[in-house]
Amino acid sequence: MRGKILIESLEQLGEEELLKRLQRFMPIGQTKDDTAQINSYQKNLLVNTDVLVEGVHFSKATLSAEHVGWKSITTNISDLACSGVDQILGVTVGMIAPPSTQWSWVEGVYRGMDKALNQFGGELIGGDCSTGSEKVLAITAIGTLGKLRLHRSNALEGDYLLTSGPHGLSRLGLALLLQDSQIDDKQLTEELKEKAITTHQKPTPPLEALRALETSKPKKLPWRAAGTDSSDGLLAAIQSICNSSQCQAVLDPDNLPKDPSWPLGELWDKWCINGGEDYELIVSLPPSWAEAFLENFPYGQKIGFIKSGPPQIIWNNGEKLNKSIFDEFKHF
Amino acid sequence: MRGKILIESLEQLGEEELLKRLQRFMPIGQTKDDTAQINSYQKNLLVNTDVLVEGVHFSKATLSAEHVGWKSITTNISDLACSGVDQILGVTVGMIAPPSTQWSWVEGVYRGMDKALNQFGGELIGGDCSTGSEKVLAITAIGTLGKLRLHRSNALEGDYLLTSGPHGLSRLGLALLLQDSQIDDKQLTEELKEKAITTHQKPTPPLEALRALETSKPKKLPWRAAGTDSSDGLLAAIQSICNSSQCQAVLDPDNLPKDPSWPLGELWDKWCINGGEDYELIVSLPPSWAEAFLENFPYGQKIGFIKSGPPQIIWNNGEKLNKSIFDEFKHF
Repeated sequence: MRGKILIESLEQLGEEELLKRLQRFMPIGQTKDDTAQINSYQKNLLVNTDVLVEGVHFSKATLSAEHVGWKSITTNISDLACSGVDQILGVTVGMIAPPSTQWSWVEGVYRGMDKALNQFGGELIGGDCSTGSEKVLAITAIGTLGKLRLHRSNALEGDYLLTSGPHGLSRLGLALLLQDSQIDDKQLTEELKEKAITTHQKPTPPLEALRALETSKPKKLPWRAAGTDSSDGLLAAIQSICNSSQCQAVLDPDNLPKDPSWPLGELWDKWCINGGEDYELIVSLPPSWAEAFLENFPYGQKIGFIKSGPPQIIWNNGEKLNKSIFDEFKHF
Repeated sequence: MRGKILIESLEQLGEEELLKRLQRFMPIGQTKDDTAQINSYQKNLLVNTDVLVEGVHFSKATLSAEHVGWKSITTNISDLACSGVDQILGVTVGMIAPPSTQWSWVEGVYRGMDKALNQFGGELIGGDCSTGSEKVLAITAIGTLGKLRLHRSNALEGDYLLTSGPHGLSRLGLALLLQDSQIDDKQLTEELKEKAITTHQKPTPPLEALRALETSKPKKLPWRAAGTDSSDGLLAAIQSICNSSQCQAVLDPDNLPKDPSWPLGELWDKWCINGGEDYELIVSLPPSWAEAFLENFPYGQKIGFIKSGPPQIIWNNGEKLNKSIFDEFKHF
């Protein structure tokens, strides 16, 4: 008798399970970071691929073609930065677009990419394009590895947990662009609104934070720090460090990384810790290194510390984290 | 008065014009080949990105999931081989699939990729996945450059034009899988049918031909040869060498690269010269090197020679090429 064949859709599987299954096909050691490393004789290279789909990752309601191009490059470079890139070498672009797509859109996308590459380094070195029913950009960026290879799995008990900047701005920018009725306009300064929209449409990869991190290392310490970017939100980034490093993160709810003019309230806390698309560097490193970094980098902030225990995030006041706040960024 | 804004769709633009416009965004020297080169200190790297869209590049009527995975890797490696790759280092995979996609399909694709990487070298080093309305694979392969950097722009007057194998098999395989009524089954041997289907579903990148080409070079000659793969068809490959090298290719209509049991007739000639998806190496090189290669590599064949003149392909009997045969592989 033949066994029953179970047919599972990706919807049934869920994203986490899908990624877990795909890891079976990857060599050990390459699976815990967004960025792949190639040992290329004298210099190691970092390689990162992202796919961006219209309606999932971008929409014309909130991003111009030029924003899409800029963001496709800078969010990719953000992953490289949070792995320890030294110099961006090149980028390949796979583009899919329906036949009815206007050239002006394509030109705008490439103009945005060009501007981002001019600002952060690297050049367009190749690509491919094809027709398809929806717009897709598949970006692969390659850079050289600097002194500090950041891995999610490098956190140790006693480390401080730092961020390179405030969180939630991109989520607020999205809400403003969509005229979200949850926002009470009176709570917001014009400066904050402008900053939020810029952060959403034209994010900056945390390369300066990485440079400051490198120059801040006390000489006697080894080049060991854990890191990732907060593209899926602050808590998701910290949870991924906990999972990979098999440790706990203790956060201070009164010291979340917020913009100075960020309003008070539950919605605002939620957007800060789980808004997503923040592209800040999240690092776990020894206290003396952390303190030197905070002195050198004014936007840096301590948000907690690492202790041993089964992987999870806890508040330092003993309260448990509400699991529902993790639900926002599922792709399947 | 404001000027009239011309809005052009990609359909109106056409693929050739689209690619030409995109080249404005690329550095000079990177635009004439499918493969990007990164100078990485001691070793140069080759990088190639391809996007594959369901319904455009693959369909379940003709390819299983495992075939799709195999083909996504081998066709990409074919581009690297025809640029002079030494060793495949790694591959990143961007995958887009609708939520209703069955896991078994995804698993099959990755199994096919895994088998191809095991056979031809390299490993899966990273990637990304997302939901979307149609299935897409965006593959970036990276390898080291060997002794011989093949460029389309390297052909010179007096060169011989060679291929690494017969053409048209993949197109015949597709026709057989689709039960195309143009085929008269009596004309075909069982062996040819099997070979054609395998060539369509499980193509082999021309790495052995490249190795033979390298070992065949007479010592006194420099490492100069033009090359590309015939993924868009034999004539398209030769035309691209003519365009990039600003030269003419003279072909012998009685000596087209056909399988020994290939039938006679107009349809069969057309499929040979313009069937597409052949993934053979097309090279242009000095006669003494060409002759040494043909001795070392039994599947190699001389198909013509290069002469000076405005870029075009001509028959050696003086007949003009029918332009309509170029029409098959437009993507927009």
